[in-house]
Amino acid sequence: MTDFQPIGIVHSSLQTKGAPPIQSSFSQAAGTIEIFPRYLEGLRDIGQFTHLIVLYHFHQSDSQALSEKPLVDGNANHGIFATRHFNRPNPIGISYVALTGIEDGNLSVLGLDILNGTPVLDIKPYIPAFDVIPGAGSGWVTEKHVAQIRAAGAGSISGPAGGNTR
Amino acid sequence: MTDFQPIGIVHSSLQTKGAPPIQSSFSQAAGTIEIFPRYLEGLRDIGQFTHLIVLYHFHQSDSQALSEKPLVDGNANHGIFATRHFNRPNPIGISYVALTGIEDGNLSVLGLDILNGTPVLDIKPYIPAFDVIPGAGSGWVTEKHVAQIRAAGAGSISGPAGGNTR
Repeated sequence: MTDFQPIGIVHSSLQTKGAPPIQSSFSQAAGTIEIFPRYLEGLRDIGQFTHLIVLYHFHQSDSQALSEKPLVDGNANHGIFATRHFNRPNPIGISYVALTGIEDGNLSVLGLDILNGTPVLDIKPYIPAFDVIPGAGSGWVTEKHVAQIRAAGAGSISGPAGGNTR
Repeated sequence: MTDFQPIGIVHSSLQTKGAPPIQSSFSQAAGTIEIFPRYLEGLRDIGQFTHLIVLYHFHQSDSQALSEKPLVDGNANHGIFATRHFNRPNPIGISYVALTGIEDGNLSVLGLDILNGTPVLDIKPYIPAFDVIPGAGSGWVTEKHVAQIRAAGAGSISGPAGGNTR
C-alpha cells in the first residue's frame, strides 16, 4: 500500500525503550517535534490549538506480536489490539502533546512519551468535540494501572529511563 | 520506511467521499470492521473495551496537500496539520467507534465515519485516562462548526451521502 514517508522527527530526552511505560497524558517531558522544510506550509494555523495528536512510527518495535504483556499488568497477556504496546502488526503510535511554541519548523511540546529520533507520520489538531468520548470504559486498565503509569510519567522529566507508549 | 499492510477492512454504508463532512463522535452509522484471519489472535480481550481507536488509510485521498479548506469553514484555508482533512502528506485517518459486538473477526461498531472498503491499519483500545485531555482548546473549530458537523453526522444513518473524516 502507500509508502508513508516521515514528515518530521522527535527530539526528546527519552533514549531507551522499555520500563517504565508512560503515556503522554502523564508525561512532564519537554521536547521538540521538528517538521521537515518541505512540509512547513502545513503548519499554518496550528498555533491556534493547545494540543496536538502525533502519529509516528514505533521505529524500535522489534516484533509484530499478536499478544503482549503490558508492563503495567503483571504477567497478564492481552491481544495486541487490546493494548497500546509498540510491538504491533503496523507499528504506528499515537500520542498527544501540549503545544507551547513554534519557531520555523520546530514545535516545542510538553507531555512527550516518544523516543528520541522517532519518525513522525502525521500531526492533527486535538479537538475535544471530536476526541473526547464521554462515558467510555477502560477495559482491563484499572485505576491501579493508571496510577502506575502516572507515577512513571512523573519520573519522565528526569531523564533517559522513560519508555515508549505502552 | 516500514511498509504497512492492512489488518482488515471497513464495511459501512458510506460510499462517497465529500460533503457532508462528519466525525465519528457524531455519526450514528453502524457497520463492521473485518479483521483478517491471520490477525484474529490480536483481538483477545478487546471486548472489554467500549470504544476503539481505528487508524486507517485514507485510500481515496487524491492529493498530498499542505493546505485545505475544511468544508465546515467556508472558504477559509488552513495548513493541513491544523485540519483533519484526508488530503494529507501521509493519508492516515483516525476515528473512534463504539464496539457493540464481536463474531469471529467481525467487529460490529457504531459511529462509523469511514468509507466502505477502507483498509484498516491498526486498532487500539480507547482509554479515557490516556485519551481525554481536560481543558484542551479547539483552535479555529468553533461551536458553529461543531454544530454543522453534528448535524451532518445525524444524517449519516440514512445512507450514502456521508463523507470521510474532515
